[in-house]
Amino acid sequence: MDDLPTPHAALHAALRAGLPADAVLTDPDVTASYAHDMASFCAAGTPAAVVLPRTVEQVQHVMRTATEHRVPVVPQGARTGLSGGANASEGCVVLSLVKMDRILEIDPVDRIAVVEPGVINAVLSRAVNEHGLYYPPDPSSWESCTIGGNIGTASGGLCCVKYGVTAEYVLGLEVVLADGRLLTTGRRTAKGVAGYDLTRLFVGSEGSLGIVVKAVLALRPQPPAQLVLAAEFPSTDAACAAVCAIMERGHAPSLLELMDRTTVQAVNRVARMGLPESTEALLLCAFDTPDPAADLAAVGALCTAAGATEVVPAADAAESELLLQARRLSLTALETLRPATMIDDVCVPRTRLAEMLAGTTAVAEKYALTIGVCVHAGDGNTHPVVCFDHTDEDESRRARESFDAIMALGLSLGGTITGEHGVGVLKKEWLARELGPVGLELQREIKRVFDPLGLLNPGKLF
Amino acid sequence: MDDLPTPHAALHAALRAGLPADAVLTDPDVTASYAHDMASFCAAGTPAAVVLPRTVEQVQHVMRTATEHRVPVVPQGARTGLSGGANASEGCVVLSLVKMDRILEIDPVDRIAVVEPGVINAVLSRAVNEHGLYYPPDPSSWESCTIGGNIGTASGGLCCVKYGVTAEYVLGLEVVLADGRLLTTGRRTAKGVAGYDLTRLFVGSEGSLGIVVKAVLALRPQPPAQLVLAAEFPSTDAACAAVCAIMERGHAPSLLELMDRTTVQAVNRVARMGLPESTEALLLCAFDTPDPAADLAAVGALCTAAGATEVVPAADAAESELLLQARRLSLTALETLRPATMIDDVCVPRTRLAEMLAGTTAVAEKYALTIGVCVHAGDGNTHPVVCFDHTDEDESRRARESFDAIMALGLSLGGTITGEHGVGVLKKEWLARELGPVGLELQREIKRVFDPLGLLNPGKLF
Repeated sequence: MDDLPTPHAALHAALRAGLPADAVLTDPDVTASYAHDMASFCAAGTPAAVVLPRTVEQVQHVMRTATEHRVPVVPQGARTGLSGGANASEGCVVLSLVKMDRILEIDPVDRIAVVEPGVINAVLSRAVNEHGLYYPPDPSSWESCTIGGNIGTASGGLCCVKYGVTAEYVLGLEVVLADGRLLTTGRRTAKGVAGYDLTRLFVGSEGSLGIVVKAVLALRPQPPAQLVLAAEFPSTDAACAAVCAIMERGHAPSLLELMDRTTVQAVNRVARMGLPESTEALLLCAFDTPDPAADLAAVGALCTAAGATEVVPAADAAESELLLQARRLSLTALETLRPATMIDDVCVPRTRLAEMLAGTTAVAEKYALTIGVCVHAGDGNTHPVVCFDHTDEDESRRARESFDAIMALGLSLGGTITGEHGVGVLKKEWLARELGPVGLELQREIKRVFDPLGLLNPGKLF
Repeated sequence: MDDLPTPHAALHAALRAGLPADAVLTDPDVTASYAHDMASFCAAGTPAAVVLPRTVEQVQHVMRTATEHRVPVVPQGARTGLSGGANASEGCVVLSLVKMDRILEIDPVDRIAVVEPGVINAVLSRAVNEHGLYYPPDPSSWESCTIGGNIGTASGGLCCVKYGVTAEYVLGLEVVLADGRLLTTGRRTAKGVAGYDLTRLFVGSEGSLGIVVKAVLALRPQPPAQLVLAAEFPSTDAACAAVCAIMERGHAPSLLELMDRTTVQAVNRVARMGLPESTEALLLCAFDTPDPAADLAAVGALCTAAGATEVVPAADAAESELLLQARRLSLTALETLRPATMIDDVCVPRTRLAEMLAGTTAVAEKYALTIGVCVHAGDGNTHPVVCFDHTDEDESRRARESFDAIMALGLSLGGTITGEHGVGVLKKEWLARELGPVGLELQREIKRVFDPLGLLNPGKLF
């Protein structure tokens, strides 16, 4: 075999002993393409191999082999992550779950789906729609990201303000442990409190505790189509006041998003959406209630009272979809402003959102950078996008420093460094700051329980 | 001091060194009253002391003292638990949190409450109602049980079918660890994925990992008052078919409860409610939607199609409240049938509910016992109440065996041994069966991370 002379020959042979030939990739040009997810500023090593198992048994073989050879394993989905959590470490086996992509079951009475980890989020969403069901979590990468990856980072999306994040939809898991043993957690019932909640421990653990090979997901009845309203504000303060008023009055919008002027202008530039460029903050609010027009009218009045200069409810589903497209384009649009971007993910209590946005503007000024901000406003979850030229050393340094300043600001406002993107490599040092020494020590000890040899996604989280 | 000659004199003195005099109870007659929660068939030891701290520092003092003296600590709320999870172990310090009963914060914009663990569920519920907010978890003991106890067992209630269990409402915790250190977990933001979800690990851990001394709880906007419908069925099979049809059609009832004939008759006997005694299963369904009457009409039609002999929507809130009272009385009423009861808590996928109820009837026949069943039908969460005479040795044995047979049945149907009551002492052996050896081993290792000396609520769970 052509790879026998390589330094990883024994590992390759051992992997191939339990995997089909086409499931073990060792060509360095090919494996290199698996080294990175979509995060900037995150180091990655060179994989020793990439494996693409199709069965639980094959995943067990990979983990047994890795344990025997003391080789680190980096689990991967579609590599759409934004924190380097799926980046290869040097000499690792990249364990890609994308070929385990079967939807095993959809049950409209129990309102569950049972899936393999490689199922694409949008594929599952559409499949359950056909049964009148709804799988809410909708990260912006939903057309390409996998459910396994969503579970790894406890992904959010636009729907969270009403429907919550991925964690709320994972009822039970099958997990291959570091040593190859198979663990079943949780349940397929609506309720269950038998023992510690290991399911929830795996959700958001970024592949550091085990390899999720099957998931029982909770589904909801499909809600009516949502109707969207756009409101223009002369300041982010006024927009945030509207957000607080909307939530204080007990509304349950299915979407409550804010785009700052930089974002609005960037979206217009890439897609000629005709969004109002003179506004400082564009607020999008949607309802999927029985009478969304009435709810939007009430919210419109609150926006006007908070100082909105214009309030435009969509007339129909098509207009609503256009407004949502504008929001979904935000990150892509901001990425065109400068050669590189770093996307932050700070979440603050919504009462502190105005301070967070004002503070982010101050950070942009201090570091002389363009920072566009789009916000899951109903959740207080901001995505400041630092736009910079990565070939300019000074600008790169300022970008990195501004990114850190934004996290420090978030923590000072009672927030968290990551609302939905995860820690990965990008925010490791900041995780320690958020958790404090006691929390960090306990997290490390839990890691040791599941992975005593430290083989699973080493160097991530902490 | 009068307790100096007792075997626990040194412990008492050490506890008193950091606690007010009235916060340390050592009179055996008094401490004995803290030995038991509400479960039958669960052994309890004699406490060495009962402490009633009022501050976090006092709880830390208790844990440091317990660690120093190697004395087990059993945390307690209102002792309304149904699995012996709060029963004293021999020579333990009972750590009652009932004096830490302050609501520290209610924020209608962030939709959170910050509370101490001893706050009574109903007290919190009413306090947040005054702000137009809603704290859903409503175990049947809600007028007396504490939030800390609810967190310990991840309690459910009648609302779960629409609003989920306690776990879904705990955003962050402050926890005193076994050695007295203070750990902060989670967040007060709507979202957050920084590190492993330790918050959720504590929820449902039955006081075995640490002492919750503060909780950040998520709140919801207060929904409209619910309107209730009652439907009579000639068989539990037909009632369960209606439950499946209701859920399959995408309805979101705020309550979907089933009472079997034994329960209906028992309730009539204690409260003269005039419930229909000839029916085999009485289904209660409620909606708190904008147009509950329309939703109830749709559900009523589904009930009729499934074979209901009578469908009676409540005309107004008062009639609805009467029907709910009947349901809430079920356990109390069943307790009057025989001198003692054991309440099971098996939860199955709702597609298997009919088999679960038929199987429970078969168990009652096999063991020649009265077993009344009330069910959170929308969740598949059954409460078979085994009624027996605990002074009759043979009947007691049959009761215990029937209880086990019901759990075995639940597991065989893909269910869990406990939907909301927890494992405690009562279901320890069954937890091992549900989790399997790999899961059990990992749970024990996690316990060791938090409590290496095994001082926290020993002998519970596993």
